[in-house]
Amino acid sequence: MTIVRPGAFNGADAGSDGDEPVPFDDVLIIGAGLVGTSLGLALRRRGVSVGFEDADPHHLKVAVSVGAGHAGPSGDRPDLVVVAVPPTVVGSVVAGALDRFPDATVTDVGSVKAMALAGVQEHATGSIDRYVGGHPMAGSEQSGPLAAQADLFDGRAWAVTPHPDSRPEAIAAVELLARTCRALPLRLTPAEHDEAVALVSHLPQVASSVVASLLTSAADVHLNLAGQGLRDVTRIAAGDPNLWTQILSANAAPVAALLREAAQRMEHFATTLEELKGDADAELASGEAGTLHQSLARGVSGVRRLPGKHGTGPEDFALVSVLLPDRPGELAHLFADVEAAGVNIEDVRIDHSPATPAGLVELAVNQRARTELLDVLTKRGWSVHGS
Amino acid sequence: MTIVRPGAFNGADAGSDGDEPVPFDDVLIIGAGLVGTSLGLALRRRGVSVGFEDADPHHLKVAVSVGAGHAGPSGDRPDLVVVAVPPTVVGSVVAGALDRFPDATVTDVGSVKAMALAGVQEHATGSIDRYVGGHPMAGSEQSGPLAAQADLFDGRAWAVTPHPDSRPEAIAAVELLARTCRALPLRLTPAEHDEAVALVSHLPQVASSVVASLLTSAADVHLNLAGQGLRDVTRIAAGDPNLWTQILSANAAPVAALLREAAQRMEHFATTLEELKGDADAELASGEAGTLHQSLARGVSGVRRLPGKHGTGPEDFALVSVLLPDRPGELAHLFADVEAAGVNIEDVRIDHSPATPAGLVELAVNQRARTELLDVLTKRGWSVHGS
Repeated sequence: MTIVRPGAFNGADAGSDGDEPVPFDDVLIIGAGLVGTSLGLALRRRGVSVGFEDADPHHLKVAVSVGAGHAGPSGDRPDLVVVAVPPTVVGSVVAGALDRFPDATVTDVGSVKAMALAGVQEHATGSIDRYVGGHPMAGSEQSGPLAAQADLFDGRAWAVTPHPDSRPEAIAAVELLARTCRALPLRLTPAEHDEAVALVSHLPQVASSVVASLLTSAADVHLNLAGQGLRDVTRIAAGDPNLWTQILSANAAPVAALLREAAQRMEHFATTLEELKGDADAELASGEAGTLHQSLARGVSGVRRLPGKHGTGPEDFALVSVLLPDRPGELAHLFADVEAAGVNIEDVRIDHSPATPAGLVELAVNQRARTELLDVLTKRGWSVHGS
Repeated sequence: MTIVRPGAFNGADAGSDGDEPVPFDDVLIIGAGLVGTSLGLALRRRGVSVGFEDADPHHLKVAVSVGAGHAGPSGDRPDLVVVAVPPTVVGSVVAGALDRFPDATVTDVGSVKAMALAGVQEHATGSIDRYVGGHPMAGSEQSGPLAAQADLFDGRAWAVTPHPDSRPEAIAAVELLARTCRALPLRLTPAEHDEAVALVSHLPQVASSVVASLLTSAADVHLNLAGQGLRDVTRIAAGDPNLWTQILSANAAPVAALLREAAQRMEHFATTLEELKGDADAELASGEAGTLHQSLARGVSGVRRLPGKHGTGPEDFALVSVLLPDRPGELAHLFADVEAAGVNIEDVRIDHSPATPAGLVELAVNQRARTELLDVLTKRGWSVHGS
């Protein structure tokens, strides 16, 4: 039961499979890896004619086998060329495509955009105004066309990074590509993009890898105690070292700066813990003022800033859980009390666990309204819990 | 379709809801937080009489409301008392329970075991031979009884940490508790346990928190590019800072040592990246011998060592994906080729995605057999992909 669902960033709105016109006549995808092949599957879903090229005949064969498109361009005039090759060769392949297909918009899906643009500028023989960089924020720790999924981009952000000479119609074509794949296009400069992914992608990748690397020398019995937390933190560390060497190398300066900052914060945690020895009681007694507590609370604040799956802003993200007795009329009773509190409910989820005789209602409210709602409901006798 | 499923650590074997005798007459749980209440739900599922005590009447009310047990001990002779209170008070509460219930086995579920034992020794007025420490490796970034789940412990490890004077029958009772909750008891000394959780739980917690803390000052548009990787890495950073202050303080020395090592590895990554500037090509040209590549590959090796969800060892964990043409007889054809390769298949999963005309078969094989299987199948014309 949804009362208000913030829909601004909702991938489900972004491209239905209904009677809409086919958005492109012919798309050529160069590179049949995980992202290229997933892109082909997503475009085929909308009826677009998709051709594939790949230097590796095996990858090409698999992409065609899974239904992502056919081998080679359909004709010699694709209206859009998507370059989905490893970061180090993006520049030369994009430049080659601009040459070969003089009417096509050319984009790429590389993870680092300033270096891609520099590569295109270096290799291009003519104007690059038909080139617009792009980067769908979707991937997998797996690689290759067999791991491709048509829904890889559903509801994800897709950075679109024009350069000053990019033609408006080329920018529009790349944004249409993103929406056709049910992603949300977000326009940034290449430099802005690279600074952003250093933080939201490259830093967590290295942090995950560092934690995972410390497991190599652990005793088996210790690893048997591993729970979901460790698995989540280290999942992306399984990513392809070749690919990540290229990505991190291409964005070295912003990533190095963030890694130094992260290393310093870890050292600071370590120092705090060492200084506690024998006086943990003092740290605990200081409560929220304690050094450890403050560092941990900063982490909680950081997580809360992450947009929801569909990009609902953090202001929508406080969840208040209410235990609902299994009696008729209790839900109406609850909403009357919520209304009395003057709090706007963004979303509601009701969870009837088979194990519990009562229901659990989750109310999503504005962060600023959270404390007030908790107070009012508690005073009115509800069992509540705010996350 | 499963050919061989390694079952040694399979939670599903560990306690069915069938006609088995009720494993305990009466269990008292002191502390109706997330873990205590989940424990009550898991025990109720097996028909055990469960009483609850909690200093917070609100928590107690909620635990009873969700069906985890009744308020207070049933009688004055519980056969098992489980102490599920914050780490700093475990010692005194366990000592109190040993006094109050002279026939009961007493255990706790605290996250750090040496400090818990020291606390029990400090506060106990008599023998502590009925006390055996425990730690179910399950939790949530949520807290409180409303977040409790009966299946929280399913298939998870449960560390059982006797001290030299623990009675064998008390150890057996705690191991039975773990199995009744469908977990796998693993016996360790308190010190071994603390060293293990520093690595598999406390280090990833701080790493997650540090990455999340760097998000606090990011621009909104940067955070809109966040994908699943960042979400996974930072999920546990949302954990309660009060609880984690207690846990980390109680295990300060081993955690600090690991944090220093992790910080050094991050610094090393940063230095490598900075030294690359202008010469990323040299790093890329060195391939597997490159410094970045080696660091990232160590992370991959670390993740591969993690046991599977049900604790199948890492040697069972190489997955080989094979694209199966949608023609009759292809599966038999594939298995004939696998048999010819002399490779033992541990598990098989067939994925018919609606988007693909062909099927994807995942073969789980011994790590050592992975390369051979990939070679043989490729030579015989299959489209394969090894993760």
